[in-house]
Amino acid sequence: MTALERLREVLGGLVDTEPAALEAARSDRSGHAAQGRPLAVVHAETVEHVQQTLRIATATGTPVVVRGAGTGLAGAANAGSGEIVLSTARMTRVLEVRPEDLLAVVEPGILNADLNTELDRYGLWWAPDPASREISTVGGNIATGAGGLLCAKYGVVRDAVLAVDLVLADGRLLHLGHRSVKGVTGLDLTSLVIGSEGTLGVIVGATLRLRRRVEGEVCTLAALFPGVRDAAAASAAVTAAGAQPAIMELMDAASLEAVHALLGIPAPVPGAAQLTIRTDGPAARAEAERIVGVLRAAGGDVAWSADAEEGERLLAIRRSMHAAMASLGTTLIEDVSVPRSAMPAMFDEIARIEQAYGIRIPTVAHAGDGNLHPNFIIDGDEVPPHIWEAAGELFRAALRLGGTLTGEHGIGTLKSRWLAEELGDDQWELQRQIVRVFDPQGILNPGKVFAPHD
Amino acid sequence: MTALERLREVLGGLVDTEPAALEAARSDRSGHAAQGRPLAVVHAETVEHVQQTLRIATATGTPVVVRGAGTGLAGAANAGSGEIVLSTARMTRVLEVRPEDLLAVVEPGILNADLNTELDRYGLWWAPDPASREISTVGGNIATGAGGLLCAKYGVVRDAVLAVDLVLADGRLLHLGHRSVKGVTGLDLTSLVIGSEGTLGVIVGATLRLRRRVEGEVCTLAALFPGVRDAAAASAAVTAAGAQPAIMELMDAASLEAVHALLGIPAPVPGAAQLTIRTDGPAARAEAERIVGVLRAAGGDVAWSADAEEGERLLAIRRSMHAAMASLGTTLIEDVSVPRSAMPAMFDEIARIEQAYGIRIPTVAHAGDGNLHPNFIIDGDEVPPHIWEAAGELFRAALRLGGTLTGEHGIGTLKSRWLAEELGDDQWELQRQIVRVFDPQGILNPGKVFAPHD
Ligand SMILES: Cc1cc2nc3c(=O)[nH]c(=O)nc-3n(C[C@H](O)[C@H](O)[C@H](O)COP(=O)(O)OP(=O)(O)OC[C@H]3O[C@@H](n4cnc5c(N)ncnc54)[C@H](O)[C@@H]3O)c2cc1C
Ligand SMILES: Cc1cc2nc3c(=O)[nH]c(=O)nc-3n(C[C@H](O)[C@H](O)[C@H](O)COP(=O)(O)OP(=O)(O)OC[C@H]3O[C@@H](n4cnc5c(N)ncnc54)[C@H](O)[C@@H]3O)c2cc1C
Repeated sequence: MTALERLREVLGGLVDTEPAALEAARSDRSGHAAQGRPLAVVHAETVEHVQQTLRIATATGTPVVVRGAGTGLAGAANAGSGEIVLSTARMTRVLEVRPEDLLAVVEPGILNADLNTELDRYGLWWAPDPASREISTVGGNIATGAGGLLCAKYGVVRDAVLAVDLVLADGRLLHLGHRSVKGVTGLDLTSLVIGSEGTLGVIVGATLRLRRRVEGEVCTLAALFPGVRDAAAASAAVTAAGAQPAIMELMDAASLEAVHALLGIPAPVPGAAQLTIRTDGPAARAEAERIVGVLRAAGGDVAWSADAEEGERLLAIRRSMHAAMASLGTTLIEDVSVPRSAMPAMFDEIARIEQAYGIRIPTVAHAGDGNLHPNFIIDGDEVPPHIWEAAGELFRAALRLGGTLTGEHGIGTLKSRWLAEELGDDQWELQRQIVRVFDPQGILNPGKVFAPHD
Repeated sequence: MTALERLREVLGGLVDTEPAALEAARSDRSGHAAQGRPLAVVHAETVEHVQQTLRIATATGTPVVVRGAGTGLAGAANAGSGEIVLSTARMTRVLEVRPEDLLAVVEPGILNADLNTELDRYGLWWAPDPASREISTVGGNIATGAGGLLCAKYGVVRDAVLAVDLVLADGRLLHLGHRSVKGVTGLDLTSLVIGSEGTLGVIVGATLRLRRRVEGEVCTLAALFPGVRDAAAASAAVTAAGAQPAIMELMDAASLEAVHALLGIPAPVPGAAQLTIRTDGPAARAEAERIVGVLRAAGGDVAWSADAEEGERLLAIRRSMHAAMASLGTTLIEDVSVPRSAMPAMFDEIARIEQAYGIRIPTVAHAGDGNLHPNFIIDGDEVPPHIWEAAGELFRAALRLGGTLTGEHGIGTLKSRWLAEELGDDQWELQRQIVRVFDPQGILNPGKVFAPHD
């Protein structure tokens, strides 16, 4: 019997071979699609379905691509010829909420926003807030180690997961971590699974560390600066002043122009860059006033408000970035991260690469933690070689500055060829061997992250 | 040539075979000592010395026990017959401090308190604050995943390390992690090394995530309750009220009595338990006042002060716990961690075990995060079998309550026989295989953590 026949025999109607489903599973939101079409999509509804699928995959040596909502930006969930797509999107239950322990136990397929709607009833929230929170799954967030606007203050996924239930390639179920806040028993495999992009196993359950909803006012500030270097320096000054904004986003001139054009509002002064900052909690207003002072001293033209509606208006410009980029063409969203103090230097490197390649690279940054999203705009679906070359220069610049290839989106398919440059060959090989401990046959997401390189 | 001869040839005077040095390396502060005496202590002063030692160890198949200050409480740094002790205690330099990036790069041997003295000049600190901070090394803190009084608010070691330089068993040097705050490139090996207790490699450098010194007042509260259950419930009420104390320590009746006796102050009401709480930051006083209300409503007899000296006096009782236990005999300090809400149940279990075994188990807890330190007092140096049995019951109770064997001290020698009960056999085996990827010959800290079990 073929793998597909076995899947049908054991999982029946959960095995989907509709052409539209197979076609959809070839790509995520990175703009990249896998070669060929996968064998089938298995819509797992229980842990047992996941185990059954993996047992069949192991017995038949068939590769498996785990998939949440497919909103990834690294091509990590893309499945091609001969692969089984194992979707956890139907496993959406919240199994437990424990306000007294600030934890929840959930299945992997629940959307981040749906979970937070549920938690809101208890006055709680799960802090990781990718801009895709309405459309991405908690399992996908964990598998990518997602971040978001609020993470400089409230932490990323790595800070917000206590335990993970993981099904291995051979179908065995492991319980990693514990429900207590603290614990140093054995190796920290929970952390190892966070950001592992479907290469170590299938996350079938997670114990999440929650926060109590932040009470108090929310203040929003927007400040225009003559250039991106000034804006970057101002954001550093805010951090240096000891302020801890909930959000601190930087938009360069090209980003601002694109958003202004999309929203049909008057264009800013050419070359101007913007910082958008939000403070919250009991000291929100005092902190906002202090930050206004810092921004003005740094040459910023500042508007701010403690009014919710006006605040949303100020933030809308940043929130429209994704749509503005999409309006320009296909976007390759990059994701380097550098030490905060290296942000001005990184913007200089971006300007240099723009010059060298004759392209524009509209860039936004989570300025509070040095994570930049430079956007390459391309025609059509395939990233042309000279854009990859430019991206390669960008990556190397980030590494030279003490940073990393990816702050929150992952390596996936798109960045695997640079991985060894960051890790070094010895570490690359060691990491691949660790993957093999979890998945000796190499059937989980083959060709992703640890793809062969030269 | 023997391993010792080779070490002498290459490392000369750094190779110490003085009987006193060998004897000292047999034990840490757990009360446990290894069988026999190690071959030699190598006092590494550079990364190269560490690499040379490990190359010789690999070539000769000689086991290596890495050692910081030897203050561990799990027997993890104890070295016996035929083993090389590789000490990193002389590698004490601070290589970089970057206030603008809130990071420092250090060698592993610097004492936690010495580092913080250095950082204080910049208005910065490294938050992990084990009670042993004056006498333990940063490398040891990382290798054990240390915690402390302040970690419920300011985080443990896992939250405070960005990157680690690791020398593998064969002498190769790897750079794990990066200097940027965010990063999801490849597997998170930095987290894997944290708490690995010398089984994966030698930490020869670390990039630490710092905090800005907390400004504002410090308020200290001490509250007496009729019993330990009441105190535990009151601490839960504080957390439930949304307060975030910097310190929240619980002492049961037996602990309080011992400390009062040691300090020669009048004994508290029999059975009484105490909560000691500290608030800090800009809202310290308001938070303290709110907490006083919660504690009184929970039946506590509360004293509090915003005065520094008076605050130290109130905290002195908790700080004297270690000395008080030492005055009673040899102490086996246990370290289970449970979800906060399970603390009352855990205290019930401790009472049950005290009854069943006819012993007292004075217990303190980091109540803010559910980490308990039950103390077994023994005569002489060897823990007798019935005490191990009682400890075993304690561990199983913590596991049943969703907790873990060790919140901050590690597994080492003393708890390896329970490790598989927590991890499950499959995960135990998987973890051991991961260790083998780092150390194929099994020469790093053999017999620790992943010791054979039945
Ligand atoms: C408009 C937009 C905005 C975005 N903004 C952000 C942002 O602010 N921050 C950010 O970090 N990302 C952002 N992203 C990227 C993406 O949303 C995140 O990477 C998200 O975490 C992916 O979740 P998903 O459920 O879509 O996972 P998928 O795309 O389906 O999968 C992503 C990876 O996770 C693995 N995976 C998924 N589920 C599981 C599971 N149960 N077990 C094991 N592995 C699994 C897959 O194999 C794959 O490797 C954005 C994307 C879009 C389209
Ligand atoms: C009075 C007292 C109070 C304490 N309070 C606390 C507390 O509040 N919280 C807490 O967590 N612990 C506490 N401890 C325990 C102990 O201090 C910590 O575990 C500390 O982190 C050990 O550091 P060390 O330098 O002494 O390491 P050691 O005891 O020398 O070694 C501990 C482990 O780390 C490994 N190791 C050491 N250095 C390296 C290195 N460079 N590379 C790789 N592995 C290495 C060793 O092999 C061993 O496995 C206390 C101990 C005492 C005596």
